[in-house]
Amino acid sequence: MEVKPISFEGEKLFLIDQRKLPKDLTVFQCHNYKDVDFAIKEMVVRGAPAIGVVAAYGIVMAAREFKSLSKEKFLENLYEACEVIYNSRPTAVNLQWSVERMKKRIFQVEEKAIEEICEVILKEAVNIDKENHEVHRRITEIGNDIVPHKGRILTHCNTGPLATASVGTALGVIIKAHESKKNIFVYMDETRPRFQGAKLTAWELLQAKVPSTLIVDGAAATLIAEGKVDLILVGADRIALNGDTANKIGTFMLSIIAKEYNIPFYVAAPTSTIDINTHSGKEIIIEERADEEVASIGNERIAAEGAAIYNPAFDVTPWENITGIITEKGIIGKPFMENILSLTGEE
Amino acid sequence: MEVKPISFEGEKLFLIDQRKLPKDLTVFQCHNYKDVDFAIKEMVVRGAPAIGVVAAYGIVMAAREFKSLSKEKFLENLYEACEVIYNSRPTAVNLQWSVERMKKRIFQVEEKAIEEICEVILKEAVNIDKENHEVHRRITEIGNDIVPHKGRILTHCNTGPLATASVGTALGVIIKAHESKKNIFVYMDETRPRFQGAKLTAWELLQAKVPSTLIVDGAAATLIAEGKVDLILVGADRIALNGDTANKIGTFMLSIIAKEYNIPFYVAAPTSTIDINTHSGKEIIIEERADEEVASIGNERIAAEGAAIYNPAFDVTPWENITGIITEKGIIGKPFMENILSLTGEE
Repeated sequence: MEVKPISFEGEKLFLIDQRKLPKDLTVFQCHNYKDVDFAIKEMVVRGAPAIGVVAAYGIVMAAREFKSLSKEKFLENLYEACEVIYNSRPTAVNLQWSVERMKKRIFQVEEKAIEEICEVILKEAVNIDKENHEVHRRITEIGNDIVPHKGRILTHCNTGPLATASVGTALGVIIKAHESKKNIFVYMDETRPRFQGAKLTAWELLQAKVPSTLIVDGAAATLIAEGKVDLILVGADRIALNGDTANKIGTFMLSIIAKEYNIPFYVAAPTSTIDINTHSGKEIIIEERADEEVASIGNERIAAEGAAIYNPAFDVTPWENITGIITEKGIIGKPFMENILSLTGEE
Repeated sequence: MEVKPISFEGEKLFLIDQRKLPKDLTVFQCHNYKDVDFAIKEMVVRGAPAIGVVAAYGIVMAAREFKSLSKEKFLENLYEACEVIYNSRPTAVNLQWSVERMKKRIFQVEEKAIEEICEVILKEAVNIDKENHEVHRRITEIGNDIVPHKGRILTHCNTGPLATASVGTALGVIIKAHESKKNIFVYMDETRPRFQGAKLTAWELLQAKVPSTLIVDGAAATLIAEGKVDLILVGADRIALNGDTANKIGTFMLSIIAKEYNIPFYVAAPTSTIDINTHSGKEIIIEERADEEVASIGNERIAAEGAAIYNPAFDVTPWENITGIITEKGIIGKPFMENILSLTGEE
């Protein structure tokens, strides 16, 4: 089966429902932009790059919904829909980047006829989608260079096709290295609370026939201390100008262990994940999600009734703990701020 | 409700079934020593000190089962039962310590009548139980000295009354500090794969009315880096002569983060947890448990079908990462080997 997590066909957006994987491979249909907002919020679709692509198509759908209104009302509602989608989740910058780009394009053609604006919007979304694919293809090629022959790689959360609407970031590099016959081996953290490692990464690696083993998040230190890991590869939801990186909760902990045992720790992400307006990780807003994600699993209550719960979805890995950031434009090393500014051409 | 996790009454051993908590508070009855073996293996009872006490009563039950046999057969079967219980789980030394002590006592009275041997065995088990209680009471008193006023404590797994057949080790110290009106606050890791933190520690802290918050294991680093933790307190399943400490998987990771952020990291355990015949953590056998513990939760399948799983139940925290070991005889600091030998009187 080919994994095609996102497809926009005519009036509808089809998403593989990531909440149901790996048990059920089902498609979630978005009929309007509010469905898209729901899909992002409720994590039908997740993964920073995938959210960016879906957000763009959400705006296409919003434009179509408001087509029959007056031009003024059309634009008013459209910009409002952009705001709704922009705010669907706070931490991943790709979402905001994508909405900003769409808004800029709309602004450029505001004077045109509604029909024409809709066409421009669709074209922009398709471009974001296509560029996203090319960007990830490049990341996997560039990242493959740092994977040693017979490399044993530890990864966290899910950063493959499902998360990226393309070939993947960290997991894309892993799959590319496997396809390059490097005889790699992968350990994946289950990634509490939502088990993206156990559910999605394990599933994608089985599909790609990459030898791999699943562990609980707390078992990574033992593997690393025992010398069973050559390289840690993770994705990112937002990278600050100084290199501080927000990613799934549990990533920061891995980086500390990597530092202690002198294991290379790489982040793989498109440059659209880099937010040069955020100077350090301290400024990154970390999404806190519902207690229920920690308290229950399926119908099974886990936490004692009445227990208070703290459930941050992400953490921030300080730049000091990061060996390099693999992007479509090359690998960014230290000093990150200087190299980010030079690579993104924002000097 | 009073928590009385273990009670031996007449012919039967009653155990709070820890697999069912916190949802159901049910009692598991052991009618014979094979039930006891099952209860330890399947974690009806868990926690190194609790296992030690239960093992002793298991041997009492075995003796009673074989009472009607010839003396020769009685002893043969009894020693065999000791072996079965000894091997029910590999990592916690308290189990082996307890069985060894019972065997030694049996050996001393082998010449006596069966009825008399049975009485001696019962007395020895009751002594182990009583001493266990006194030892834990002392640990909580001694440990309380290192808990600062308004201390914010992070703990892992479950080390309270359920785990110890007494007042607890690490969690016992915490509850004691709370009773001493120190205004402490507790963070507890949920402790994958079996969720002893979410299920048992959360439950015991709610019962004791200690303010606390539950986190996933991967979130501890953020709390520590943000300066929200003053002290880490954990239990132990086996402590080697050099201070290396086997405890629930995920403990080692916490110790690395504690070291990086200069947070005191204490182990609380009875001296019966110290195995002076094990020179370092390298010699400790780490139990690997069934994949199913990681793959499914209740009836909910988590891991992708076909995923390989590595599920070590414990890890080893190197002595370098440990600030001190709180025992009933005092707090052991570095150098551990020297201080352990002097404290346990084995120089």
